Amino acid sequence: MKRIKLTVAYDGTAYHGWQLQPGTVTIESELNRVLSELLKTPIQVIGASRTDSGVHARCNVAVFDTQARMPAEKYAYALNQRLPEDIRIQHSEEVAPDFHPRKCNSIKTYEYHIYNAEFAMPLKRLYSYFTYLPLDVARMDRAGHYLEGEHDFKSFCSVNTQAETTVRKILSVSVIKTQETAAVALGSDICIRVSGTGFLYNMVRIIAGTLLEVGQGKREPEEIPEILAACDRAAAGPTAPACGLTLVDYQFFPET
Amino acid sequence: MKRIKLTVAYDGTAYHGWQLQPGTVTIESELNRVLSELLKTPIQVIGASRTDSGVHARCNVAVFDTQARMPAEKYAYALNQRLPEDIRIQHSEEVAPDFHPRKCNSIKTYEYHIYNAEFAMPLKRLYSYFTYLPLDVARMDRAGHYLEGEHDFKSFCSVNTQAETTVRKILSVSVIKTQETAAVALGSDICIRVSGTGFLYNMVRIIAGTLLEVGQGKREPEEIPEILAACDRAAAGPTAPACGLTLVDYQFFPET
Repeated sequence: MKRIKLTVAYDGTAYHGWQLQPGTVTIESELNRVLSELLKTPIQVIGASRTDSGVHARCNVAVFDTQARMPAEKYAYALNQRLPEDIRIQHSEEVAPDFHPRKCNSIKTYEYHIYNAEFAMPLKRLYSYFTYLPLDVARMDRAGHYLEGEHDFKSFCSVNTQAETTVRKILSVSVIKTQETAAVALGSDICIRVSGTGFLYNMVRIIAGTLLEVGQGKREPEEIPEILAACDRAAAGPTAPACGLTLVDYQFFPET
Repeated sequence: MKRIKLTVAYDGTAYHGWQLQPGTVTIESELNRVLSELLKTPIQVIGASRTDSGVHARCNVAVFDTQARMPAEKYAYALNQRLPEDIRIQHSEEVAPDFHPRKCNSIKTYEYHIYNAEFAMPLKRLYSYFTYLPLDVARMDRAGHYLEGEHDFKSFCSVNTQAETTVRKILSVSVIKTQETAAVALGSDICIRVSGTGFLYNMVRIIAGTLLEVGQGKREPEEIPEILAACDRAAAGPTAPACGLTLVDYQFFPET
């Protein structure tokens, strides 16, 4: 029996998130379907990050066990021939039989993309959140740094969490702006990049929603420590829309 | 009677190009439809660049005439409320009654985007052309410079052109690579950026198809002058797929 690790990229637009849900098409259900077809036996993957409906990924991770003799690196090619074009395996390799992607030390990096302009830009609509409200990126960046470190992120977690603890460690939050230029003054791309060792349900989207309010001047960057201390979802800003969020990096480390 | 100029951005994925064609939905047919609804009288726009089926734009241009009293700058807002979300007016203004976007001095800039990696990336599939064949960007850039200047571009024009002359002036061609990095080595984004005062039918896509062959080592950069001199479509490379092409800048100049 071999355990195979898949690195999976997807456009989440058309999917009901990662996790299996009866009656809906999810990333997990598509992976199970094509693996079961390929290997002619029922296969169930174990996913690393259960991204929400509409969230994208460049490198989510899934593992599965098989007795098939196919070399591990061939799975990427074989599965990509069967998957719809909005899901593509980026890499496949054999890992230790006890490697479990959710019980492993890891660093995940998310990017939340915002397009800030007078009018929406069709080419960006699927992968960023559009707002015409002017945003002060320096204020957003300052607010983001208050989130760095180990904190109780209860205020940044959807109330229906099943997590045992709401303490998480954020390694970095940065907010970067790139100006677009053309004949007509176009807008700015703003990227909120968050790296951490673990995230709560909706945490990055609530961080994005809160930083958007800071950028609009509705809140001060210095309020972030108070929002954290409140341990109350109502203290933070709204959950920003799913389309702006992409899981961009995922690194695993051996247990220490 | 006022002449109004619209700057129009669109995701061309779902459209049969710009130009009106009976029985199909095009950018022009959508603009005519929503303008006629808004102004309660039949309106026909005059377009600047008749982009092909599947080609995108950040700033194509259309003009129309109206006796309505609405201030010119309000059209962008009023039309965006009625347009599908893959078409968005970026700007609207009044222009001289004799301003004709195709009979005007102008500089257009196109970008042809290529994603070069072992496997396709779902988030890029709609707006770039994917190839796993390794590309030498320095060779592509060198080849591109041979196209700069005033030349007969007959070799870079689809055979069914109606153009009176195939001489055009290209101001610049540059090929730029941006490397992506993540836990898994991801690919490169390659952008072919072409500015000129006029383009023939499929010209930028044939330039891209030819530079792709140079990048793969199938042709030498130094062959470009011979391809131009041949004045024969068969001498150049294939027409690269439409999805990689975006009209990114469009500037108009007073007649001299």
